[in-house]
Amino acid sequence: MTVVSENRCFDGRQLRFRHAAETLGCDMHCSIYLPPQAQAGPVPVLYWLSGLTCTDENFVHKAGAQRYAAEHGVAIVSPDTSPRGDNVPDDPEGAWDFGLGAGFYVNATEAPWSSHYRMYDYLATELPALIAAEFPVQAERCSIFGHSMGGHGAMVMALRNPGRYASVSAFAPIVAPARCPWGEKALSHYLGPDRDTWKQYDSCELISAGATQLPLLVDQGEADNFLAQQLQTSLLEQACSDSGFRADIRYQPGYDHSYFFIASFIGTHIAFHAQAIARSQA
Amino acid sequence: MTVVSENRCFDGRQLRFRHAAETLGCDMHCSIYLPPQAQAGPVPVLYWLSGLTCTDENFVHKAGAQRYAAEHGVAIVSPDTSPRGDNVPDDPEGAWDFGLGAGFYVNATEAPWSSHYRMYDYLATELPALIAAEFPVQAERCSIFGHSMGGHGAMVMALRNPGRYASVSAFAPIVAPARCPWGEKALSHYLGPDRDTWKQYDSCELISAGATQLPLLVDQGEADNFLAQQLQTSLLEQACSDSGFRADIRYQPGYDHSYFFIASFIGTHIAFHAQAIARSQA
Repeated sequence: MTVVSENRCFDGRQLRFRHAAETLGCDMHCSIYLPPQAQAGPVPVLYWLSGLTCTDENFVHKAGAQRYAAEHGVAIVSPDTSPRGDNVPDDPEGAWDFGLGAGFYVNATEAPWSSHYRMYDYLATELPALIAAEFPVQAERCSIFGHSMGGHGAMVMALRNPGRYASVSAFAPIVAPARCPWGEKALSHYLGPDRDTWKQYDSCELISAGATQLPLLVDQGEADNFLAQQLQTSLLEQACSDSGFRADIRYQPGYDHSYFFIASFIGTHIAFHAQAIARSQA
Repeated sequence: MTVVSENRCFDGRQLRFRHAAETLGCDMHCSIYLPPQAQAGPVPVLYWLSGLTCTDENFVHKAGAQRYAAEHGVAIVSPDTSPRGDNVPDDPEGAWDFGLGAGFYVNATEAPWSSHYRMYDYLATELPALIAAEFPVQAERCSIFGHSMGGHGAMVMALRNPGRYASVSAFAPIVAPARCPWGEKALSHYLGPDRDTWKQYDSCELISAGATQLPLLVDQGEADNFLAQQLQTSLLEQACSDSGFRADIRYQPGYDHSYFFIASFIGTHIAFHAQAIARSQA
């Protein structure tokens, strides 16, 4: 692991590092914010998963999360959104919604994607082990959240790994990738035509299949241009309602899909996770 | 004036607009954040001047200022850092510290710069008039702040226009452009070789020449790579001390020149200006 940049921020440390990711077969960049409390001892850790086209850096620069992480004494890890590098295949036409920057947090099974696009395993196993080994975090005290494709990824990680995360939250998540154009394009390429294999990566399907309850918070902007066709938050409401899964799903009038929306509510989400982590320990 | 984007942020409006800037002989972009209080009536306005290479957008995306602007009920205007467009001359070698993105907030007098590079007049006259005409602001209740080259610009604007701004503040400002490489390059090209003409754009010279007191706050990171050669905060301390000009100049251990530094203290600066504006009215 090589630290490529470090900046002091809200009396903590904003770090960016590079490492050889065995799961993905490529070098990866990842960012982590360590709050000032980490100087005195290990702190809980939140994982942030970003949306389509993002790297590990968008969140770091635009969300304004460091202030709240410093306030609550939590680290925030923000990984990249796909494998990277000259050897990693991309969409043949360079589309922004598939391939590089659009890994959808799955383990691809179809060629040529299956050799590198294994973001699910990377996030479930390799990255947390690296973070635990290299940084002063309480690896077992963690939560996960994300935006759009990353909101999808965060919910899938949490719903498929009961007991691992104290809580999960999402901004404008893709709640049912098997039923929207972005998701259908990605899953059909990464996983092939058998839609049964898609269900393990579809939050609505996981909840309908009886996923274990954990605290779930969703914020969705009402002026989000992707709401009707891609995000379809109502499908999550329906799945939760049908399954008796308790979720706090909030519609925010006037807000769109941008980081201005994320910045406006990131403090609420970080407080939500900090409280869930504290409660889960008690 | 044409609004090119609008995003809801902390219950206010983050706007970007384009207008034909007569002073500069080109079209300009400018951003403004209107806090939620502006829905009920006009609000005070802060002007933020950015540093080398920035446009009007860096501050909008990276400073995390909207939260504090919403808290204190102030608008923040962030203009671009130079004239722009195909007709505007740039450094022949495309240097990042001169020409486009590096107007230094002066009125150039030398060809070919003098036809467009008139950022001082743009900020002193044209832009405030436009803001007052188009947005719900109390134009007379204003303060100004900035970063690096923009910290220089903010201090020069405030020191040369007594009574106009309730307060001024700066992050890592160029305090003596006549005595540092960035400033010497820019001023010699924009203003010519007669160094007497440079003094009107040099904060230390203006203070030494008896500028009128106003509240002045400066934050300077101790780990800033540009401190020793370019920023030379000690020259400002000396000028203030020699002239009896009261300033709050703070060194922040470990902080560098980046927006991570700005984000960490932007809340303090916005509170400082809000209080100064409130006090100046009382």
